[in-house]
Parts: sequence; structure tokens; C-alpha cells
Amino acid sequence: MNTEPIRFFYEFASTYSYLSAMRISKLAEQRGRSVEWVPFMLGPVFHERGWTTSPFNIYPDKGRYMWRDMERLTQAAGLALVRPDPFPQHSLLAARLAVVGRLDGWTEAFSRAVFVAEFGEGQDISQPHVLAAILATVTSDADAAMQAAGDPEVKQQLRDNGEQAAQSGVFGAPSFVTPDGELFWGNDRLEAALDWRGPTT
Amino acid sequence: MNTEPIRFFYEFASTYSYLSAMRISKLAEQRGRSVEWVPFMLGPVFHERGWTTSPFNIYPDKGRYMWRDMERLTQAAGLALVRPDPFPQHSLLAARLAVVGRLDGWTEAFSRAVFVAEFGEGQDISQPHVLAAILATVTSDADAAMQAAGDPEVKQQLRDNGEQAAQSGVFGAPSFVTPDGELFWGNDRLEAALDWRGPTT
Repeated sequence: MNTEPIRFFYEFASTYSYLSAMRISKLAEQRGRSVEWVPFMLGPVFHERGWTTSPFNIYPDKGRYMWRDMERLTQAAGLALVRPDPFPQHSLLAARLAVVGRLDGWTEAFSRAVFVAEFGEGQDISQPHVLAAILATVTSDADAAMQAAGDPEVKQQLRDNGEQAAQSGVFGAPSFVTPDGELFWGNDRLEAALDWRGPTT
Repeated sequence: MNTEPIRFFYEFASTYSYLSAMRISKLAEQRGRSVEWVPFMLGPVFHERGWTTSPFNIYPDKGRYMWRDMERLTQAAGLALVRPDPFPQHSLLAARLAVVGRLDGWTEAFSRAVFVAEFGEGQDISQPHVLAAILATVTSDADAAMQAAGDPEVKQQLRDNGEQAAQSGVFGAPSFVTPDGELFWGNDRLEAALDWRGPTT
């Protein structure tokens, strides 16, 4: 096992992050690699570009294609796909909860469950009661976790994740950053990121 | 051999079109598929979005990533990569010449040679003398071909290609459209496009 993890930057509102979240652990295990799950908010990145919503909404042709592409890819992967309404979903509370889970080790299980609820079942993950129900499946103290999501240090950690993402050159989700700092963008690059062994020239 | 070809929509200024142009024929042949090479101009699509240059120039982080991604992918494919200056290149004359080649069957060879000159050697493909030298390698009558590039019907055919692309939902390059109208976008989807056998549901 390579002790240095690959960092998996994901955004709960991102459709392609759903695909990666559902397969990264198995692929990493097959290669003896570990993964650090790093939730972050893509909104600030988009705002810097002057975007106030997803580019898939701004550019309808691109959006239509993305949903069709997701249909094909989820079908091939044996995953359900239900378009959440609205899209994109407000993901701030889910992301803060994912940060909370790092202390007790349920970030990964929680994150996968959120993605399944959102894109596999079409649930509204901006709703605290939806997230509370998911929390109850991964921790015995869901109330404390919900409480902790409001802590200043949790909010700051999420902002730090975004800062870390920006410093690594991340501009979209999912993104993968190797221990030597190599950036890979998109679910299509997951295998390449896990197989990366450094520059060959 | 499936007699209905897959349509390969490419733009000479597009880096990822270079990758697909260099591998599509072999992959198609392995699958007993034929390919229709359809050059088109991406400029009008971008202009509709209010873009006056490549999104890789508008968004520097995305641009930096694209060039690094191209380095990795060309290296893995055994292809040379030299960044042309300026980027993107003016591709109108090259695209019109590719249309001209359809009558005599040299569109494919010409297009590959243009991509190699542009992205493998960093040559400026907006220069008529660069394109004339390439023409001379694929046809015995390069002068006539250069002359024909100015014909109204050639110009119209290129516009028709763009119209055909738009009607198929194309918004970027490379794109692949199957005989049943399924759209696949990007070099990463080339295999999926060639393997497409229609919806399974």
C-alpha cells in the first residue's frame, strides 16, 4: 500500500462526481492505493468566471449532452439515475457534514449515500431532514454531527479544502491530485490518476 | 462492414481532434466500421456563446490543464506535441481544402497531415504555403485544389457541415455521431461511439 493517498476532490452538486464516488474505492484498492476524500465547493470557482449556475444550465446543448452521457454511463455501471430538481442542488450543508465525518471516519460512506440519494433517487440534498436520515445510517450520533456542521472550524476546513483545490489547479469536479501534485480532471481520468507513476520524461 | 458510416466531426484548431484523427481509422477498422470525415468550423458555435477565442484561452486554469493533459496523452500515444502559435489557429482554409478532398478521396490523408503539421510540428496552418506543401503530398494537382477552395459550393458545403453538426447537437470537437443519431463528444468517447449498438432499454 502506497501510504501517500491520492486526493479526490468532489462536489456534491456534480453529476460526474457521483460516478467517481461510486467506483473510486474499488479501483484504488485493486491498485493498492489509498484515497483522501476532499469535499469542496465549486461555486466560488464558477463565480470567478461570472457563472451563477452550472455551465450545464448556462449552455443548454452541453447540458442536454451531459444528461444523455450520464444515462449511458450510469446504465453501463449499473447505477440508477434520477435528475434532481432543482439542478444543481445546494450542496453546502452536505459538504460541511462530509467534513465533520473526517474525525469519525464516516466521510466516505456518508458521501456515497448522499450521491445515491441525490442522483440515484432524485432527493433534495439541500434539505436537512434528507441529510439527517443519511447521517443516521453512518453514525450513531447524527444530532451531534448536524450540530457540528455549524462549527466555525468545520466551515473553515471546507473553505481550506477549496483553497487546497485552487492551489492544485482544480477548476472542476471530480478532480484527482496525486502525491506528486499531478492534476487529473473528470471521471474519465480516474484510472489514469490512480495509475500515475510520475513523469516519464 | 457496417455500410453506414459513423460521422467524425472535427475542427482543425482543436487539440483533442488531433488525437482522434490519429487513431480513429485503426479503431474503426478493428471494429469493421467506416468513418465519414466531416470538417466543420467551431467558431460560429463559440460566437453564439459570446466567446471570441478558445475557452482554453478564456479560462487560463482550464487551458493550463488541457496542455498538460495533451502532453500526457500524446506521450502515451507516441505522438509529438508542439504548441502552435497563435493558438487557436485560423482553420478556415484548411477546412475548405478538406472539403475539396472529398471528391478525390484525400480528405482523410490531408486532414491527418494538417493535424501533424499543426500540433506535432507547431506549423502555422493558416498559411497557404504550409497547406500547399501538405496538399502536394496527397494530390498530384495541388494548384487546382487550392483554387477549388474558393469555390462557392465548397464554402457552402463547409457551412452545411456546420449546420449538420448543429442539428446533431454538436457543441464541441471532436464529436462522433452514429448512424442512429447518437452523439458522443470528445476524444475520450471515441471507443464508446464506435462500439455503440443502440439504446439497450
